[in-house]
Amino acid sequence: MLRIQQLKSGSFLFRPFSRSLASLDASKVKITNVREHSVPKPNDQLVFGKTFTDHMLAIEWTAEKGWGVPEIQPYGPLTLDPSACVFHYGFELFEGLKAYKTSDNKITMFRPDMNMARMNKSAARICLPKFDSEELIKLMGKLIQQDKHLIPEGQGYSLYVRPTLIGTTPALGVSTPDRALLFVITSPVGPYYKTGFKAVRLEATDYATRAWPGGVGDKKLGANYAPCILPQLQAASRGYQQNLWLFGPEKNITEVGTMNVFFAFKNSATGKKELVTAPLDGTILEGVTRDSILTLARERLDPKEWEINERYFSINEVAEKAAKGELLEAFGAGTAAVVSPIKEVGWQGKDIQVPLLPGEQSGALTKQIAQWISEIQYGKVQHGNWSRVVAELD
Amino acid sequence: MLRIQQLKSGSFLFRPFSRSLASLDASKVKITNVREHSVPKPNDQLVFGKTFTDHMLAIEWTAEKGWGVPEIQPYGPLTLDPSACVFHYGFELFEGLKAYKTSDNKITMFRPDMNMARMNKSAARICLPKFDSEELIKLMGKLIQQDKHLIPEGQGYSLYVRPTLIGTTPALGVSTPDRALLFVITSPVGPYYKTGFKAVRLEATDYATRAWPGGVGDKKLGANYAPCILPQLQAASRGYQQNLWLFGPEKNITEVGTMNVFFAFKNSATGKKELVTAPLDGTILEGVTRDSILTLARERLDPKEWEINERYFSINEVAEKAAKGELLEAFGAGTAAVVSPIKEVGWQGKDIQVPLLPGEQSGALTKQIAQWISEIQYGKVQHGNWSRVVAELD
Repeated sequence: MLRIQQLKSGSFLFRPFSRSLASLDASKVKITNVREHSVPKPNDQLVFGKTFTDHMLAIEWTAEKGWGVPEIQPYGPLTLDPSACVFHYGFELFEGLKAYKTSDNKITMFRPDMNMARMNKSAARICLPKFDSEELIKLMGKLIQQDKHLIPEGQGYSLYVRPTLIGTTPALGVSTPDRALLFVITSPVGPYYKTGFKAVRLEATDYATRAWPGGVGDKKLGANYAPCILPQLQAASRGYQQNLWLFGPEKNITEVGTMNVFFAFKNSATGKKELVTAPLDGTILEGVTRDSILTLARERLDPKEWEINERYFSINEVAEKAAKGELLEAFGAGTAAVVSPIKEVGWQGKDIQVPLLPGEQSGALTKQIAQWISEIQYGKVQHGNWSRVVAELD
Repeated sequence: MLRIQQLKSGSFLFRPFSRSLASLDASKVKITNVREHSVPKPNDQLVFGKTFTDHMLAIEWTAEKGWGVPEIQPYGPLTLDPSACVFHYGFELFEGLKAYKTSDNKITMFRPDMNMARMNKSAARICLPKFDSEELIKLMGKLIQQDKHLIPEGQGYSLYVRPTLIGTTPALGVSTPDRALLFVITSPVGPYYKTGFKAVRLEATDYATRAWPGGVGDKKLGANYAPCILPQLQAASRGYQQNLWLFGPEKNITEVGTMNVFFAFKNSATGKKELVTAPLDGTILEGVTRDSILTLARERLDPKEWEINERYFSINEVAEKAAKGELLEAFGAGTAAVVSPIKEVGWQGKDIQVPLLPGEQSGALTKQIAQWISEIQYGKVQHGNWSRVVAELD
């Protein structure tokens, strides 16, 4: 087999294609153990993403050879040339998943195939290498197995798993990376809100724009995150925890903070209820929790009572419905918090009130959905292949 | 002086404010020399941003203490925790400047105050620490002085200087970094086009969007670069070197590749000519070369003959003017290539031809402007304080 390579001079070089590029292969994994396993922290000392386990997974990729040997090694720093393109041009993307201890001594992950598919889409969008999703799921399983004593137990506790892919080419020309590093680190985490739900106040934000058609707002790229911090600080200075991101002259609701967002309405005339979230038009992150909620709602809510819609809806529609008593509930949806109830939305100097159950921090549907997902994540209820066994407790 | 810090428990801790945050201070610099200076590469072996000098500058910042001791140290890898926020959330920004050897044995930089001001704006936008611009200019001067034997000589040759600021907080929560690293690396570079100008073919791109109102397209963030590679590869597959980025239903021309862009038109009816570039509306990088060109054109072109405008203009306007013989020239403008002439623009299946001087690779104005800037950069012509002496050759 011959590969044709155009040289800078314009001439062509024919050279034998000595080997095809290596694909990601979990069976090649090399494991280097820490000398001493660390002791799990008490659950009440776990802060999201600040404590890490003993090991990490790292796999190098080069344009010349493809994927290298996956290495499970002691957690430790990365050593990179200061010209590495990840530091200059945003060649970075990640995923967030959770692994759970189930009551039957298994360790499961929730829909990891969805995260791997999205990770490959993110990679393709910024010209980083794609990989075989199933192989990375196997490798994450091996990593989790290695540190299984550090997975916290109890309702709301899990091991947060963070696969990350960065470009490492040591050169300042802006071009396709020819070197990359895929690594996975894991962090024992507790429930996002220590004492059950805590409903949040949002500021509807139209002066800063999270994503745009023709942009990359539907991909899990580092590029989408840093620009959102300043608007969040500005909202916080006015007493709101997060931004409710609006888009366009219509002021359509897109996402909340770093999560997808759902609203529930009722039609006073017909009595029918609606659960609604923004459609996947390229500006919305294709959330795994979002997809799970839509699926469960379509399966389990009575269609005579509920319509489940992915459609455009604006902050003005929400304000109007709230004024008519037709706003029922609202919540964010994402891996970290699963569902995060909303109690107020600041818009044009007023706060739109979102009803909560009396004396509670969420609405009835929000609570129901959180329970449905939790039951599947902790293996109490089966749902197709959503809960995947990736390691054994012994 | 007391500082009030709210604890997680909700109680307050009063503690003495022992010191104010340290500002960036060039006089504190600590220099560690390489054991042996490297030998300069021959000019014809210099590839943009692939060769680096012997030393680099690194300065750590923490929210607790402010800016640390600036260290000029042997060029070498960065060691960072894999959870560092630069790898996950795009906390990174950079600048590009050039240092020149002048005929009177000085080393100068071109308008470094402009780059430093922009770097501080970029930092503020993604909640990374600001710094005293003049102190970083002094430090860059010391770094350049240290490696002065590696600054290449000759027309078009210079030392490319890359200040970079990254967030290094080792935690996965998306929030304001409390640790950062500012580093500067330098790379000896030759003319962007080895044999004088080489006019390029652009593809007018409306399916991918580089920047948008309420976004960060006017800041020099890593986030703005990785997403532009795939559209460039797509344009390249159709025979175009770069994207001419369009925006909105009007198809306004915004930038080219990673540069600002200028077009020159003439009005057949009045005979008057116009040099035009997109206005700084938040979607356009505030280019130093762009500003220099506008300034020089306003100073040196005959206002009876030329209008210099920052205004919206669309690809349709360019196509119409080209059809009427009113399109004179077009060129990109940026630090790396200074000016980069354009010869064709692909749009809706046709190529708009941009006139060039007979037998040459640019138009007359493009050539003139390139010469004006080069004369100032190499110290042959003075222009206010644009050319700043930052080091001495001896």
